[in-house]
Amino acid sequence: MKKNTEKIESLTKIIEQIDFLLKQQDESESILSFTDAEKYKLIKNLASKESLKTLKNLLNNLHPSDVADILEALPLERRLAVWELVKSENDGDILVEVSDVVRQTLIADMDNTELLAAAEQLDTDEIADIANDLPGDVLNDLLESLDVQNRERLESALSYPNESVGSLMDFDIATIRDDISLEVVLNYLRRIKKLPDHTDKLFVVDRFGSILGLLPLERILVGESHSIVKDVMATDVVTFKPEDIAHEASNAFERYDLVTAPVVDETGKLLGRLTVDAVMDYIRDETENEKFSMVGLKDEDMFSSIWKSVQNRWAWLAINLVTALIASRVIGIFEGSIEKVVALAALMPIVAGIGGNSGNQTTTLIVRALALGQVTFSNIRLLMFKEVGVALLNGILWGSVLGVFAFLLYGNIQLGYVMTGAMILNLILSAIMGVMIPLVLNRMGKDPAVGSSVLITAMTDSGGFFIFLGLATLVLL
Amino acid sequence: MKKNTEKIESLTKIIEQIDFLLKQQDESESILSFTDAEKYKLIKNLASKESLKTLKNLLNNLHPSDVADILEALPLERRLAVWELVKSENDGDILVEVSDVVRQTLIADMDNTELLAAAEQLDTDEIADIANDLPGDVLNDLLESLDVQNRERLESALSYPNESVGSLMDFDIATIRDDISLEVVLNYLRRIKKLPDHTDKLFVVDRFGSILGLLPLERILVGESHSIVKDVMATDVVTFKPEDIAHEASNAFERYDLVTAPVVDETGKLLGRLTVDAVMDYIRDETENEKFSMVGLKDEDMFSSIWKSVQNRWAWLAINLVTALIASRVIGIFEGSIEKVVALAALMPIVAGIGGNSGNQTTTLIVRALALGQVTFSNIRLLMFKEVGVALLNGILWGSVLGVFAFLLYGNIQLGYVMTGAMILNLILSAIMGVMIPLVLNRMGKDPAVGSSVLITAMTDSGGFFIFLGLATLVLL
Repeated sequence: MKKNTEKIESLTKIIEQIDFLLKQQDESESILSFTDAEKYKLIKNLASKESLKTLKNLLNNLHPSDVADILEALPLERRLAVWELVKSENDGDILVEVSDVVRQTLIADMDNTELLAAAEQLDTDEIADIANDLPGDVLNDLLESLDVQNRERLESALSYPNESVGSLMDFDIATIRDDISLEVVLNYLRRIKKLPDHTDKLFVVDRFGSILGLLPLERILVGESHSIVKDVMATDVVTFKPEDIAHEASNAFERYDLVTAPVVDETGKLLGRLTVDAVMDYIRDETENEKFSMVGLKDEDMFSSIWKSVQNRWAWLAINLVTALIASRVIGIFEGSIEKVVALAALMPIVAGIGGNSGNQTTTLIVRALALGQVTFSNIRLLMFKEVGVALLNGILWGSVLGVFAFLLYGNIQLGYVMTGAMILNLILSAIMGVMIPLVLNRMGKDPAVGSSVLITAMTDSGGFFIFLGLATLVLL
Repeated sequence: MKKNTEKIESLTKIIEQIDFLLKQQDESESILSFTDAEKYKLIKNLASKESLKTLKNLLNNLHPSDVADILEALPLERRLAVWELVKSENDGDILVEVSDVVRQTLIADMDNTELLAAAEQLDTDEIADIANDLPGDVLNDLLESLDVQNRERLESALSYPNESVGSLMDFDIATIRDDISLEVVLNYLRRIKKLPDHTDKLFVVDRFGSILGLLPLERILVGESHSIVKDVMATDVVTFKPEDIAHEASNAFERYDLVTAPVVDETGKLLGRLTVDAVMDYIRDETENEKFSMVGLKDEDMFSSIWKSVQNRWAWLAINLVTALIASRVIGIFEGSIEKVVALAALMPIVAGIGGNSGNQTTTLIVRALALGQVTFSNIRLLMFKEVGVALLNGILWGSVLGVFAFLLYGNIQLGYVMTGAMILNLILSAIMGVMIPLVLNRMGKDPAVGSSVLITAMTDSGGFFIFLGLATLVLL
């Protein structure tokens, strides 16, 4: 299989080639629709068969991950045309690799027999990953086709929530007992012929299946063949529980440079394992989800229908509409002042805008500190002190620039003072809110990365308008 | 070493314990400063020695990664106090793990002898990671202390730019020749006793050091001992070049579930290897940098001085100030209209704000598509069509809501029409810009994730004010 390790452009080139090949086919069909002469039919068949063959070869030489990326990048009609061509023994792997939204479009195009065949190629943990998108009867047929152990595993995998270690673990574990020699281990491995992917160590268990230690493959290779497992295994074992939070586990993988780690129940019984590739996929998904939720998007198929996209983006725009309406009513209070000094209308968005930007800087720092567990009771005061200090300095600095600007533009020195004063106050407000909002969201059990930006902007908008217009009303009128 | 795999809270708890222990010491000192009686001195010494001992034990039982995280979370003074306590054989590892900004504070506290001792504990690739922060004479001493091969490696590692594969690779490679039997391999491994960390495969090279294939450890274990390496090695090798972009390499690791991969020069000669732990660290740094740059922060020490922080956040606020001033001048053009219909001042930020939010949603989608290489020439028209469609629908929907709102509030039906019309037009503008801006930034070789948000907001602010106030001037006056 060709693996696409070159620049991202090579994937783009393949997609363009697919575009070209499918277009050739479309065109040969449209030639036909203009005339009905027999000779065109012949040409069409030749051209389209040739291009389809080229395309099929191209696709079958790609790694399932790359095919998945191509499917994501194609509009629905072409996506299904390509999907039709790759349908093969890779179906299952590709379904696991694509995003949920794209998977749904692919599954909708398959009948139950095809789906069952695709799912049966997969491991239990992979089936669990796509189970939510499978029709109920396919899932039932699938459960029935599994043996007791795998059925139990699938059912338990399905029972763990999305962000848990249980939802990431797999069941491909190679275990050994602790009282045998490395030579026996080696003979055993030679007999089973194949180790699970990513096996960097064997899990050493007692007769009840409880984890005792880890035997890195390296130690089998370099160790003396008469050594007993018990004496050479590592006992400094990092284990996870299925109900552990996936994010914490991914941190541990990164900190301790893990490749695989055992997942155990409360009694220490080995249930499965976590591998670095599952963890990396999780990290990518997590990062992407966070970016998307920051602007109020759920995962969106690039080529979903307009109506679906509108629904996907609905809620966030509604929230922002409410905060904008509040800010608007704050301005409404001061309409009398604006009527008298219309320059206020032109200057007020500056105060609000810079406050929002500065607040978002503070929030970003605090959110990271929270994610790394670096915020403690004694820290907070120091952080707050520092952020307010920065805001004060920035306020004096940029506020003075803006004060001079306002004075030069409108020839009113008092307007300049108001501008400077409002900038200082709104930046201080933004610093306090920038520290408080993520902390409060975190305390409430919400994700501070997601909600903070909307809230801080709402505060600095309404607050900025109120401070600036209020100050102006006091000083100027 | 205790590894912190529990919830992030456990790290927070350790930091709080450190706070407590250091505070005890501070307090025993401050007791002293109030009185100078001998008995207090005794108490102080006892209390402080006891707490320091506890703290030292605590720290020495932690993994270097965890100590690094603790150092990041402490204000400068306490950070250096803790650093003093952990100074030991772990110094080097900890220096590698902390962020650049925190490393600088730690290095500033060490003399050249200490630094040299710490650096000498490290591998060549790790020295390269911290080399930028080392004083010139320490780096020179270090280079002189290395043997020829390692000096060459360090010099070449230092020559690769930050975002390249060369800057991530290490030199811990275990190589074998292709014409030997697995038994010979096994004997060789037993002789060298220790494989580099994360070794999941041996690199098979010819006598010129060019890569021929890979021999996974698994195949040595399960293979027949008389098999020849050539016949059992994998030849489907994913290789990287030192000048490859690190981001592309991290994509390849994720796609193809790699644990280690060879890095070769143009002729195929093996230079070093890339491991999954270096890739994961890179991904974390990359994600964090992106979040930070989106709000115009360079990496900032949580407890840096106020003045340093102000400088760090300076540029972005200045850019935003300029865009805010432009928006302000757009409003300035229409001051006459606002003077006549003051309601315009209260309503205009709504139009601008919702446009910015909607535009940021579009941009986020396009930026992801660009990062995954999913944007092609034929795609763009479709994407643009979809985004404009979504904007139109959202504009009609939310524009109508706002139109009714404006009418009810101000009893002016024409104001309602203006509101609806401006919302539709500004959302369409935001969709077009939301697609165009990341594409143009990308074409210009800039990171679309970083600049897009500022630019789109600038466009929808100025554009929104212009559309709304212009429309109002045409219709109402």
